[in-house]
Amino acid sequence: MSARLDDLPLRDDLRGQTPYGAPQASLPVALNVNENTHPMPEDVADDILDAVAVALQEVNRYPDREFTALREGFADYLGFGLTRDEIWAANGSNEVLQHVLQAFAGPGRTAFGFAPTYSMYPIITRGTGAAWTAGTRSHDFTVDAGSAAAQVAATAPDVVFLCAPNNPTGTPMPLDVIEAVYEATHGVVVVDEAYQEFAPRSEPSALALLPGRERLIVSRTMSKAFAFAGARVGYLAADAAVIDALRLVRLPYHLSTLTQAAATAALRHALTMLRMVDEIVAQRDRISATLPALGYEPHDSSTNFVLFGGVNDPAAIWQQLYDRGVLIRDVGIPHHLRVTAGTDIETTAFLDALASIDSRS
Amino acid sequence: MSARLDDLPLRDDLRGQTPYGAPQASLPVALNVNENTHPMPEDVADDILDAVAVALQEVNRYPDREFTALREGFADYLGFGLTRDEIWAANGSNEVLQHVLQAFAGPGRTAFGFAPTYSMYPIITRGTGAAWTAGTRSHDFTVDAGSAAAQVAATAPDVVFLCAPNNPTGTPMPLDVIEAVYEATHGVVVVDEAYQEFAPRSEPSALALLPGRERLIVSRTMSKAFAFAGARVGYLAADAAVIDALRLVRLPYHLSTLTQAAATAALRHALTMLRMVDEIVAQRDRISATLPALGYEPHDSSTNFVLFGGVNDPAAIWQQLYDRGVLIRDVGIPHHLRVTAGTDIETTAFLDALASIDSRS
Repeated sequence: MSARLDDLPLRDDLRGQTPYGAPQASLPVALNVNENTHPMPEDVADDILDAVAVALQEVNRYPDREFTALREGFADYLGFGLTRDEIWAANGSNEVLQHVLQAFAGPGRTAFGFAPTYSMYPIITRGTGAAWTAGTRSHDFTVDAGSAAAQVAATAPDVVFLCAPNNPTGTPMPLDVIEAVYEATHGVVVVDEAYQEFAPRSEPSALALLPGRERLIVSRTMSKAFAFAGARVGYLAADAAVIDALRLVRLPYHLSTLTQAAATAALRHALTMLRMVDEIVAQRDRISATLPALGYEPHDSSTNFVLFGGVNDPAAIWQQLYDRGVLIRDVGIPHHLRVTAGTDIETTAFLDALASIDSRS
Repeated sequence: MSARLDDLPLRDDLRGQTPYGAPQASLPVALNVNENTHPMPEDVADDILDAVAVALQEVNRYPDREFTALREGFADYLGFGLTRDEIWAANGSNEVLQHVLQAFAGPGRTAFGFAPTYSMYPIITRGTGAAWTAGTRSHDFTVDAGSAAAQVAATAPDVVFLCAPNNPTGTPMPLDVIEAVYEATHGVVVVDEAYQEFAPRSEPSALALLPGRERLIVSRTMSKAFAFAGARVGYLAADAAVIDALRLVRLPYHLSTLTQAAATAALRHALTMLRMVDEIVAQRDRISATLPALGYEPHDSSTNFVLFGGVNDPAAIWQQLYDRGVLIRDVGIPHHLRVTAGTDIETTAFLDALASIDSRS
């Protein structure tokens, strides 16, 4: 008895589209969406629950629209002398990026990134009415300062997204590339450090570049390092004027009382959560070290996942892993697949399953 | 050391704007933003906390993108034979309305409402790139079917907002007006029933009009009747094709695991929460019955607040109430103020404070 989508006065640019989203399948070993597969440690969960219990006592009231305690928590966690006035947060880094695009891009403006990169950038860009332009990377998915600056200067985008380290390739981005891009544009430069906690200590955060660069934004998420994908908490650090700009486009009370309480409590356990990150990094390195023996070519990764090439038929390998109860991701790069580093047991399950499949299939 | 907003490449249409939001002041009696001032009952809070504890066990994973259990909860609560396929939800009804505008309005299109009405409609409309057009109401803030249809037909908007009952005036809207507006447009008609639970039983919900009207949307919120403003949960019912359209514009995983769990648990206590609504309605009626004796003219209200006229100097009365520890709202309608019905004690505090002020001041 339902109408059809075509019967509705839908926007013309949405006609024929399908909703974005990775398949949500319930498999024993799910390593497809770069989640932190380690459950929240019990003492951390207990502390979060206590904070939620307190928050529920005033859930009948609207939240603190300025989420002051949470912004202080992020400033403390990030360091670099940041204060709460230089912090913003929203329901997942997708919403953080949407706020940035609403303030600095939107109708009549353009955003830019070096493909292949995070697949939500063009989607959120177009969702806010802006146009998306894709730049290019080298064959190993790196981009050097000279090429990056030249491409950005030629395109003159209003917002540049630098995913560092890059999803879905795992590739780090040196600070000199970020500096060169910043100099090459009058637009806003967003360094998306969703996976920064998984990078080697030798790869510094772009947070170090913030002083004196009022158009630079460094975004992060609690989804990965903090095992908090379900809680939907993304954030960013930038000049306080940028934060003022984002206040103009956010819906009032966008962060719930429960989200603010849970995230603030989780941040108090940063040291515990970062020890878990070390375990994940060890599993990632085990994947990278094992894949060549199985006939595949892993790319260098500074993240919690590994992109590997040398796959004759990605769809076939993906399906055979699926049939063995292991879910990974075909990100659409020819002859490549992507796998998230799981727990020790999950990682072993993935490697064993892959070893049992003929790599030439 | 911060830059100024003008130093940034902000969108031109945002220059000079200030962020939206009612003042958040910490006063003993806060009756300014139409919150449900009754705290969550203890047994309900306990049940919500249990649900959150379970949800935390898998908070490291992304949420159910389709929030299936929550949509089933809303369908059960609303009745009218609705199923989960006809339900949508987001972080507050503001985000629900934003999704509607992104799908059916946006750049190059227009949205419409009868002023004075909910002040976020034009803000969210412009935030999505669409233009806002305001229609008019009679002196008593009603609008009849003939006038409503004529105004809508003359404007030909892509989205019509009917706030029913209306904020900030409290005015009910009969179903014949909604039917007439629907017939007068080829656009989407959103009946915003944020306050419907506070209306008399004799004022039926527009949910009754949904069958056969695929462009009709009825939105609700848990903020008011469910004392859940802090949890940020808005929702709507509409033809399943409308829900498909909203899937095209939502950010994936927009509703957190914690929000889904908390809201689903709260819905199980609908009967308890609706008894609280009856208490609030009694306080609202007490305000309406008392104001004339104090020299003011309350408007009929089907909500949890009362708009009253006959105020010579709203700013002065507002300030004198503020000085007595009572926060209400100057909504910008000349000679009017708006007060939320609180608990018995809060309502008494408001009425006593108002009685102590010279109404001619």
